[in-house]
Amino acid sequence: MSIAPWRSPLKRALHRNRNQPHSRYFQLATVQINGRPTNRTVVFRGFLGQTNKLKIITDRRSDKFEQIRQQPWGEICWYFTKTREQFRLSGKIILVDSNNSDQELQTARQLVWQEISDNARIQFAWAHPGEKRANPEAFSPSLPDAIVPLDNFCLLLFEPVKVDHLELRGEPQNRWIYMINELGNWEALEVNP
Amino acid sequence: MSIAPWRSPLKRALHRNRNQPHSRYFQLATVQINGRPTNRTVVFRGFLGQTNKLKIITDRRSDKFEQIRQQPWGEICWYFTKTREQFRLSGKIILVDSNNSDQELQTARQLVWQEISDNARIQFAWAHPGEKRANPEAFSPSLPDAIVPLDNFCLLLFEPVKVDHLELRGEPQNRWIYMINELGNWEALEVNP
Repeated sequence: MSIAPWRSPLKRALHRNRNQPHSRYFQLATVQINGRPTNRTVVFRGFLGQTNKLKIITDRRSDKFEQIRQQPWGEICWYFTKTREQFRLSGKIILVDSNNSDQELQTARQLVWQEISDNARIQFAWAHPGEKRANPEAFSPSLPDAIVPLDNFCLLLFEPVKVDHLELRGEPQNRWIYMINELGNWEALEVNP
Repeated sequence: MSIAPWRSPLKRALHRNRNQPHSRYFQLATVQINGRPTNRTVVFRGFLGQTNKLKIITDRRSDKFEQIRQQPWGEICWYFTKTREQFRLSGKIILVDSNNSDQELQTARQLVWQEISDNARIQFAWAHPGEKRANPEAFSPSLPDAIVPLDNFCLLLFEPVKVDHLELRGEPQNRWIYMINELGNWEALEVNP
């Protein structure tokens, strides 16, 4: 798989906004079983190897795990506050939990676990997210192993098939749409903002 | 209708993040006719009078207009970068376009049109959003009337029924869920992050 053409403006945006830690956060929308949308902020964990798949992590106990299992389609909205530009990425999400039998994906899951901080790892041992607030002890478990991921730790791979890039700076604004065509190649089109 | 209890932490967040213009932007997720989610950045235009309905504006020619007509449910994800807190608001969206026969809502639509800048108003006279990029002339129409809204101008009213407030600062993080109960009153519950 070759690097998609939207990777270059995205790389530039990440570079230009690099002094803002929140430039690596974006909003991921998925759909509930009742057909209603949900939306939350997640952290960009880089791309998977030489692919165009974005890495995200989640807790298997979170609502989005079950939502994605039922409806794997999602849309990322990534707004860069310094350069005032937005990327909307539509695509399919692959769940890589502890039961995933694909060895390559399981290795990817372990590598991400090893890369994140102790602070990020310990949250997977905290009390069940979204349930009635537990006692403080439920938030001070012993530090999890730094090599072998906890069962609750899940890697999400987001594979875009369409990317909509909008630059608010510009008079008028600039906007491009990138889409995968029938041959599996990316095509770009400049459109009206 | 009384002011909902989540309005007070939201007001505080808006105040504490007021030096960042992007603190008034949030991501609105809706669902397409094919059941897949979409997600984009929009601008918060305040609350409607003494209600808990958030005001958003859009162009009738944008994809979300038709999406909301088919599936009025949405979720807002509002992340405040300075105080590191997130509000997720789930609710129903009311479309107030030029054909809406409710006089009170039509007046609200006109008032928002009058409040926005010339720069914001002129975009409703630009070439059709999302279509192949038009010539520069299509982006330099004459300035629209500042009193009577253009037909393309649509007010969205977002009426939350559930609000999920997460503070990333805090050890561990703090999280509250606000929901409307069967009697139409708001209830708050402190939950695990």
